[in-house]
Amino acid sequence: MIILGVDPGLTRCGVGVIEAGAARRLSFIHVDVVRSEPTLSQDLRLMAIYEGLAAKMDRFSPDAVSIERVFAQSNRNTVLGTAQAAGMGMLAAAQRGIPVALHTPTEAKLAITGNGQAEKIQVERMVMRFLNLNTIPTPADAADALALAICHALRPAGALQGGEREEHLTAAQRQWAQASQQAKNRHGVDRGM
Amino acid sequence: MIILGVDPGLTRCGVGVIEAGAARRLSFIHVDVVRSEPTLSQDLRLMAIYEGLAAKMDRFSPDAVSIERVFAQSNRNTVLGTAQAAGMGMLAAAQRGIPVALHTPTEAKLAITGNGQAEKIQVERMVMRFLNLNTIPTPADAADALALAICHALRPAGALQGGEREEHLTAAQRQWAQASQQAKNRHGVDRGM
Repeated sequence: MIILGVDPGLTRCGVGVIEAGAARRLSFIHVDVVRSEPTLSQDLRLMAIYEGLAAKMDRFSPDAVSIERVFAQSNRNTVLGTAQAAGMGMLAAAQRGIPVALHTPTEAKLAITGNGQAEKIQVERMVMRFLNLNTIPTPADAADALALAICHALRPAGALQGGEREEHLTAAQRQWAQASQQAKNRHGVDRGM
Repeated sequence: MIILGVDPGLTRCGVGVIEAGAARRLSFIHVDVVRSEPTLSQDLRLMAIYEGLAAKMDRFSPDAVSIERVFAQSNRNTVLGTAQAAGMGMLAAAQRGIPVALHTPTEAKLAITGNGQAEKIQVERMVMRFLNLNTIPTPADAADALALAICHALRPAGALQGGEREEHLTAAQRQWAQASQQAKNRHGVDRGM
């Protein structure tokens, strides 16, 4: 299963592609940043991000696209551009019939390190370990995009099924399900999962 | 000149199309609402909005698209979906080479009634008068989309030219330029105009 992760942004959009095999064996395929020129008008910037993300999807034909869930509480100066960039990724995926999952940063940290409040360096080290990389993937937004792809590959089976009974979940799965539920409750609009 | 106005929303997106002729003579062409089904996932909803707006642009071939500028200060529960819907309109226009203008509600009220704080009913009455309509266009978001199109048609020449010297502007033009400048200062990300 090929998973393409997107760390959305209007100026820089991280893209990370991995393959998830049997027994949660993960391998690195690609990492890059899609950019838009800040001097362009908003519509042309969004088109640049859309075209960049669509080209990555056409090149790697992912089975799933994992995008960071954007919250209205985030940085006021950039949150709308970030949400619009995430929207470009959702549209490009939907047009190709690729399922989209939205994951919060907390979900990603939890899935990768077992700690939803993990430091950035811990997440980066675990990304390296999962993907057998010798160096931390750069730039930072590219590493975050890989983390989102890994998060989707490692998500507990129960995380995406609302009907799953709580007692069948492991402690980590319960923590995940709670974080996911909290995210949904906090922010009704992004019910993309 | 054909102008297509968009009142963005994830559930309902108002669309209003007018023709602006010589001497600011305006005529009504079309009004409608593009919808997305709230039970669908976010990516499919955005695709529905994108396709609906793109179809309107293909049908009416506007020379300009006028979209309401979304602010991060708006309703937290819906602002990200609204911004993403606006992004769908921007992308559809950019892909067709149609220039996009973003106008604030204050700019629209000012352009149409001469008062940036005008009540909704005043705006609706002026929309009727400008377009020679016998009834208020319904639903409300459709009327707002027409107002955005009219606003773009009536914008003072100085409004879109940063280099214009202030003393050459009329009082209304100055008020407009100030509202427009304030909007840009308040919200750096949407520099689409």
